Amino acid sequence: MKQQQILKIKKSKGIANIAVLGAGGLGMAAARIISKKKEMRIAAIADKTGFLLDPEGINPRLLENNKPGDIGVRTEDAIGEIIKNSDKLDGIFIALPNLTNDFIPGIVSRFAESGYSGVMVDVLKRSSAVEMIFGLDSSLKDAGITYITGTGATPGLLTCAAALAANSFMEVTGVEINFGVGIANWDSYRATVREDIAHLDGFDLHRAAKMTCAEIKDELERRKGILKLTNMEHADDVLLERAGIISRDRVMVGGVVDTRNPMKPVSTTMTLTGRTFDGCVSSHRFILGDETTMAANVVGPALGWMKAGLEFHARGIYGVFGSAELMPRFVL
Amino acid sequence: MKQQQILKIKKSKGIANIAVLGAGGLGMAAARIISKKKEMRIAAIADKTGFLLDPEGINPRLLENNKPGDIGVRTEDAIGEIIKNSDKLDGIFIALPNLTNDFIPGIVSRFAESGYSGVMVDVLKRSSAVEMIFGLDSSLKDAGITYITGTGATPGLLTCAAALAANSFMEVTGVEINFGVGIANWDSYRATVREDIAHLDGFDLHRAAKMTCAEIKDELERRKGILKLTNMEHADDVLLERAGIISRDRVMVGGVVDTRNPMKPVSTTMTLTGRTFDGCVSSHRFILGDETTMAANVVGPALGWMKAGLEFHARGIYGVFGSAELMPRFVL
Repeated sequence: MKQQQILKIKKSKGIANIAVLGAGGLGMAAARIISKKKEMRIAAIADKTGFLLDPEGINPRLLENNKPGDIGVRTEDAIGEIIKNSDKLDGIFIALPNLTNDFIPGIVSRFAESGYSGVMVDVLKRSSAVEMIFGLDSSLKDAGITYITGTGATPGLLTCAAALAANSFMEVTGVEINFGVGIANWDSYRATVREDIAHLDGFDLHRAAKMTCAEIKDELERRKGILKLTNMEHADDVLLERAGIISRDRVMVGGVVDTRNPMKPVSTTMTLTGRTFDGCVSSHRFILGDETTMAANVVGPALGWMKAGLEFHARGIYGVFGSAELMPRFVL
Repeated sequence: MKQQQILKIKKSKGIANIAVLGAGGLGMAAARIISKKKEMRIAAIADKTGFLLDPEGINPRLLENNKPGDIGVRTEDAIGEIIKNSDKLDGIFIALPNLTNDFIPGIVSRFAESGYSGVMVDVLKRSSAVEMIFGLDSSLKDAGITYITGTGATPGLLTCAAALAANSFMEVTGVEINFGVGIANWDSYRATVREDIAHLDGFDLHRAAKMTCAEIKDELERRKGILKLTNMEHADDVLLERAGIISRDRVMVGGVVDTRNPMKPVSTTMTLTGRTFDGCVSSHRFILGDETTMAANVVGPALGWMKAGLEFHARGIYGVFGSAELMPRFVL
């Protein structure tokens, strides 16, 4: 394993070869951000249309307004093709929609079974999906995979801020995450909006997955483009509970998504409340700048955890980690 | 080394034996907080009056209104006595005043030379002192010591919040830390107040170190108990530069200390400004609850980094780490 790792680093001259799975809003933003980094390059991208692979780095201009299948190889098993070539990859960024809980865990298992040994990060949202990933811990350890789960904004950036803030307190009594997302049009983040709809009263994952685009447009029309979400099943709860900080039922996640306006309807805020050793009750807050987009707050942190994962992997530390356990490392 | 570590963990039944060096405001708060934790116990405390050592855990009541020399052994080399017994210790919390830059680095070197192999954390403030600690990296690696520097509030909690926030941005253009500290009377945190005075215009470390308590009282009287601090030499700059986030000259630390009122004169805030991949300029903020004291925000995080250090040490990862590189782990 160690020999293989050394060879891999030599091959890429210290630049990590990253594959992005998914070419929706987040996947395309990831490709764009990675192509601007010195320490990483975009070596593969895949979605349901096909895949494009170039271990020397894909020219990001190729991806502008194109899906992987348009410029690479059209195939119905793009993931399988990435897996076949996974010896050329240092890290996998999973930005696929996950409308059934076992979809991404299933893909991860395929990578592990194929002999891939590198880093993987996801930007999963739902607690139940993240728990399935933790269930893969021993098989990923055996495969030599360093996996970090929940590495987006929430769960991810805001969960980690909560885990950091917790240290001032003897007992943490509540964590509340209230997010604001503004997107110019829902078309750019279809999977994200579809998943948000699944969290609305009267909807579920099954129903949201089956909706046609016309039905989603109608639903958004009825709500004037605004989705108000309360008490969501977000894995911030599982991640903070695993870190020993607070029981999951005291973690509340909600937000407002405006699907017609890039301005955030509310400032995204994490508020952690607790009691200090000297008996005071107080709250620390982490507030994201209103001008930062969902893509910036999801993809940037995910790549930061990717870099942390690469460091852990080089030290021979494998298995599944929650994003609240590890400090994401700023990627140059 | 590995065998020794396993024996040590067995001996303490999974509870880490912590020594606190220093019995001022922060040292005593640390002893009090550690004694309330399940995963750690206070096994030693030392200051210039002497030391008290009990590997089974010191009764915290003994320390109420007592200095280590009053209840333990009076000696002029309490540190030397702790070093002699360091095989009974898993972690050292250094809460000593550091009025000359080389004082704490000198103590750390003594531990390394004596064969101590465990975790050490400091709550150093000045950039130059933290840089001296980084200079000890290879000797601490050789000794099998896992050392985390700058683990207080600033540097520490707020630096780590900045390092976390940085991930949303392609380029970080500024970090500003503005702290508010309120203490009921300066007597409880003499070393901290003395160091703050050293940062005032017209003062330096040498002059502050030489001041008598009466002179400090007079100075505080002239300023109505309020110390306004700007552009301080705080190691947040070194730690963020080392993490590749921003050059040190763009990190600004200042604050207001009220030495006569436990209420904070301003809310402690970290503001990180940067440019995102999609060209927006924005700021993330981390704001500490006004009711949380300096002791809660310094000692809690320091113990969180101690726990992270214990995990790294058990994995055989040694050397000096900055607090912005590692996630502090909430201590149960």
